[in-house]
Amino acid sequence: MITTVTLNAAVDVTYTVDRFRSGGSHRLPAAHRRAGGKGINVSRVLAAAGHDTTVTGLVGGPSGDAVRLELAAAGLRDSLVTIAGTTRQTVTVVEQAAGDATVLLEPGPEVTAAEWREFRTHYRHLLTTSRVMVLSGSLPAGLPDETYAELVLLARRHDVPVVLDCCGPSLLAAVPAGPALVKPNALELAETLGGSADVRAGAEELRAAGARSVVVSLGAEGLLAVTLVGAWSARPPERLSGNPTGAGDAAVAALSAGLARNTPWPERLRQAVALSAAAVKAPLAGDFDAPAYRSLLSGTTVTPDG
Amino acid sequence: MITTVTLNAAVDVTYTVDRFRSGGSHRLPAAHRRAGGKGINVSRVLAAAGHDTTVTGLVGGPSGDAVRLELAAAGLRDSLVTIAGTTRQTVTVVEQAAGDATVLLEPGPEVTAAEWREFRTHYRHLLTTSRVMVLSGSLPAGLPDETYAELVLLARRHDVPVVLDCCGPSLLAAVPAGPALVKPNALELAETLGGSADVRAGAEELRAAGARSVVVSLGAEGLLAVTLVGAWSARPPERLSGNPTGAGDAAVAALSAGLARNTPWPERLRQAVALSAAAVKAPLAGDFDAPAYRSLLSGTTVTPDG
Repeated sequence: MITTVTLNAAVDVTYTVDRFRSGGSHRLPAAHRRAGGKGINVSRVLAAAGHDTTVTGLVGGPSGDAVRLELAAAGLRDSLVTIAGTTRQTVTVVEQAAGDATVLLEPGPEVTAAEWREFRTHYRHLLTTSRVMVLSGSLPAGLPDETYAELVLLARRHDVPVVLDCCGPSLLAAVPAGPALVKPNALELAETLGGSADVRAGAEELRAAGARSVVVSLGAEGLLAVTLVGAWSARPPERLSGNPTGAGDAAVAALSAGLARNTPWPERLRQAVALSAAAVKAPLAGDFDAPAYRSLLSGTTVTPDG
Repeated sequence: MITTVTLNAAVDVTYTVDRFRSGGSHRLPAAHRRAGGKGINVSRVLAAAGHDTTVTGLVGGPSGDAVRLELAAAGLRDSLVTIAGTTRQTVTVVEQAAGDATVLLEPGPEVTAAEWREFRTHYRHLLTTSRVMVLSGSLPAGLPDETYAELVLLARRHDVPVVLDCCGPSLLAAVPAGPALVKPNALELAETLGGSADVRAGAEELRAAGARSVVVSLGAEGLLAVTLVGAWSARPPERLSGNPTGAGDAAVAALSAGLARNTPWPERLRQAVALSAAAVKAPLAGDFDAPAYRSLLSGTTVTPDG
């Protein structure tokens, strides 16, 4: 079982318009809604790839009900904890003419101390049946920067390796707790470390601080991995156009599956790059193009880095 | 009791941003949500002005639950009928720098024939306790243009006068059924009648077709009323700046209350103009500025028209 944690779950709403006019009124032919938040997208990719996965995290309000209904419809195992606050919404307006996407991100709900205690108890229970724990995305209001650090420590006490996908102060606080893998993208890595320009040096810095492995996603350039047993660069065979949202979540899904199965690092990275690239080719975050995945897998190159 | 019917209810979401950039990503400090749709806004104004009012119409899905929760929190009597489809959302992005509002309107849910029969039975029951029935706003998918005509005829059989605020084919179809009052705005009137430029002539045309009274809202110019007992122009004392959304709903609320109390037409129009202008001064549709209402009431002029 790979369990994903989404503390700041969302209803992701996508509107497609011919032309988007700031200051204008737009009658939409349709609205597309699905459960979102990075951890939920990771579980979606894992389930589509045939892995056993459970979604946990915090949801509340009518939008929280919408998240649960959509997870049920998608056949994803829901082990979410209900809170009093209301799950946030994200709105993406895709303009067909320009290909632009305008994004509006609501803040998350306020989580109380009592709700956090309840979640922690639930999380401990889930650790007893999890091979890998994936912690992904931003924190809702009311939870301190040390939140992920606490969850990493609890997992280590149960000998469950953690894959952590976050950035900024919550990443810095969690690294000393010893996550098995952290996966910032290059921009997040630079921002988290305060402007370090060199990706390899930044990854080494996080490893020295306590992360057992660091994988940095480089967009169209693929991944750079720094691990106990070596460092590698993995590159997709071609530059892909499509929807980059969710590519990082697909990489996290593949890296988590590789960790659960103890796949050798070069093969694990090849799968992560191919799955991430196949996600770019799919229109929605959390989906991937399966035939594209198979052809990308053979074309992806993995080379030792330095 | 004044009952309002909102067949295409909505969750109205308002986001306020400093600067709105098409193609950009916006982290919002807050999101404001409330139950919307014209009939619900009319009931909100009626309740705030001390009138006994009930909300009916169709809601469904998690967003329908959100509408009901918000009505309960606002202390409005909820007699809505639940459908299988999902209540729409409207998103308004208010840009503080430019003062612009960008609006995204989802389509409504699909209403089935069985759901419509259930609503009609419920509506007949509500007619037995209603002094005035207010029918407001667009129709969701699946309901024909004759929907309001049917509701007007049912109300007439119960001797309940109807105030109708809609436009286009559903207004044209309903006018021969004999509503007590129709209230298009000048643009809607012109579009409904296919480009007739003269407001007075358009209003006379709707009266000749079966509407007992016609009140046309003219934005900052106030109202023009054509009734069995005379025609009047009513103008606010000043040009107001603010949020024009909901000004029409406030006018409908005052006109419905005047109809219920059989207030003489000139006074009824004075109240409608003052309440509409006081709504422009309030930040949210369905609210009005009570001290402004009292001063606007004395300043509004009502003169016979022709």
